[in-house]
Amino acid sequence: MNAKPPTSLDVARLAGVSQATVSYVLNDRPGARVSDETRERVREAAERLGYVPHAGARTLRTGRSGLILISMDDVPYGPLAIGMLEELDRELSRRGYTLVQYGARRLRGVPAARAWAELRPVAVLAGAGKLDEQAVAVLRSAGVKAVVALGAHSSAVTASVVVDHAGIGALAAGHLIDRGCRTIAAVVPAEPGLREMGEHRLSGARRVAEARGVPLTRADLPFSEEGAAALLDVWRRVDGVFAYNDDYAMLLMTVLRDAGVAVPGDVRMVGCDDLPLATLLRPRLTTVRIDVSAMPSLLARRLEELMEQEAPAEPDHIHPWNPVLVVRESS
Amino acid sequence: MNAKPPTSLDVARLAGVSQATVSYVLNDRPGARVSDETRERVREAAERLGYVPHAGARTLRTGRSGLILISMDDVPYGPLAIGMLEELDRELSRRGYTLVQYGARRLRGVPAARAWAELRPVAVLAGAGKLDEQAVAVLRSAGVKAVVALGAHSSAVTASVVVDHAGIGALAAGHLIDRGCRTIAAVVPAEPGLREMGEHRLSGARRVAEARGVPLTRADLPFSEEGAAALLDVWRRVDGVFAYNDDYAMLLMTVLRDAGVAVPGDVRMVGCDDLPLATLLRPRLTTVRIDVSAMPSLLARRLEELMEQEAPAEPDHIHPWNPVLVVRESS
Repeated sequence: MNAKPPTSLDVARLAGVSQATVSYVLNDRPGARVSDETRERVREAAERLGYVPHAGARTLRTGRSGLILISMDDVPYGPLAIGMLEELDRELSRRGYTLVQYGARRLRGVPAARAWAELRPVAVLAGAGKLDEQAVAVLRSAGVKAVVALGAHSSAVTASVVVDHAGIGALAAGHLIDRGCRTIAAVVPAEPGLREMGEHRLSGARRVAEARGVPLTRADLPFSEEGAAALLDVWRRVDGVFAYNDDYAMLLMTVLRDAGVAVPGDVRMVGCDDLPLATLLRPRLTTVRIDVSAMPSLLARRLEELMEQEAPAEPDHIHPWNPVLVVRESS
Repeated sequence: MNAKPPTSLDVARLAGVSQATVSYVLNDRPGARVSDETRERVREAAERLGYVPHAGARTLRTGRSGLILISMDDVPYGPLAIGMLEELDRELSRRGYTLVQYGARRLRGVPAARAWAELRPVAVLAGAGKLDEQAVAVLRSAGVKAVVALGAHSSAVTASVVVDHAGIGALAAGHLIDRGCRTIAAVVPAEPGLREMGEHRLSGARRVAEARGVPLTRADLPFSEEGAAALLDVWRRVDGVFAYNDDYAMLLMTVLRDAGVAVPGDVRMVGCDDLPLATLLRPRLTTVRIDVSAMPSLLARRLEELMEQEAPAEPDHIHPWNPVLVVRESS
């Protein structure tokens, strides 16, 4: 094993060709006339030496890296998000791009943009809260063709993927009211990473409840039995709860059962995510499933369009997610 | 916004200094004598132009990128893994490195190594199954200083982080036998992504059961109520179950309750992961918690050692995980 990585010059010497020929062959450059036999000889020499073309060198030469960077801390947890990311990765590799998730999570704004730009990605996806106008400008100056914000609202400064949390809350509240609930509560998680999404879901539930004249209580809830038990007054006062997600619904159903409050007899309950546990709970949990099956291919296609445009597009957004109610026994 | 990214020459012109001075200032090179006033002027010019030093160019010059690459599909899902990855990211950024997760999941062996090497990372972490001797050689030739395999066994070709799944099974089986179980079953998930880990956990359980003269049944289980109900014969025949993890334990507890089999009266049950749901189940679930709190800093330190060594180290491994039994009501 060499201390110094082999260069294209080493490959050229071993193959008995010019360095330009090595570059033509290994980078599949158009317009080069090189015989099959020479191509074979160059590839063998590269193989023998363990020569790897350098993405950095290639980027400097062609201005394109094929790297698509996604800011790691803007990807939410959970099987849904992971599955979506995997599918996006597949869609992008099929198109010749490589998805990398970028760490260094505390960065935002211009410092984040500078750090990302060092990799010379062709596209950057990041949380809308990280992408102000200056950050987008830094990325553009560094040759990033597509900058896409991820968030609950569309970005004013760049293209966005909008995930409609309000729509989930609206669907859940509408269902509870359809089932006859006359006063409902909506859970907002106390956890910092979830609170904002909870508030968006709450706003959707509130809109529907107000339109239909049903009072709605906001319940700020830490994920603990003590926390849920401390709000027993609230759960006893309402006849319907939108529990934010299935995990919180499980927490509430456990605490309500221990307190002798019947679901759905006393309180109807709706979760979100349609996790496997939703069907394992007794009663089985009514929940909102988020159909994101269209997202990866829509997003990959939109990225490709943005990367092919000469000038940055006006901020627009795609909205590739579709909440669906799955009715079971708890409501 | 420029179509062409600004170069260090543009910065030099605007600041009225040489290109070398720009490079000294913006890359914090040692040994350069540049006045504070000039430094300030260069930084202002770079700021004004939106100039970003190019990691590719810097890598070509210094041979070091600061990038640490982890193969994305070798990071298991779940809150435990995500939390660990976040902490590793923090540990590495504190040391001046950037963790990127690399997509393109179907690659393995030399093609994977070639793709990773294009980014010129200083270190690569990947599943042991992807890293054969040739792949490690390609990475070494490309200047990767540290290659670390992740898996249930130590790698024969490079340094490894070994995650001891067998130890989890051993701990769970030992506890069930301590509680008086005389015939036990161990769940192996039928899902392809989990089966291998399940088999490692099974092997640990089997070792302990054999040593203590207790018969052990392997139960291959898809994650569905129908699948679990189809094995009711098995669950009725044993008096202890190691359920692979907490999700499978919840599945089994639901199916057993529906079938009138009492936990722990008829069957004692142990999960793994200590998820929040473990305390929400009734009876509360005994589980194996995996203490990985030491892993991020151990791994970051080991990576740093490996990167500083002149020659690649002999394959060795660190083993930074510690299964702990959390006894509750189900056993």
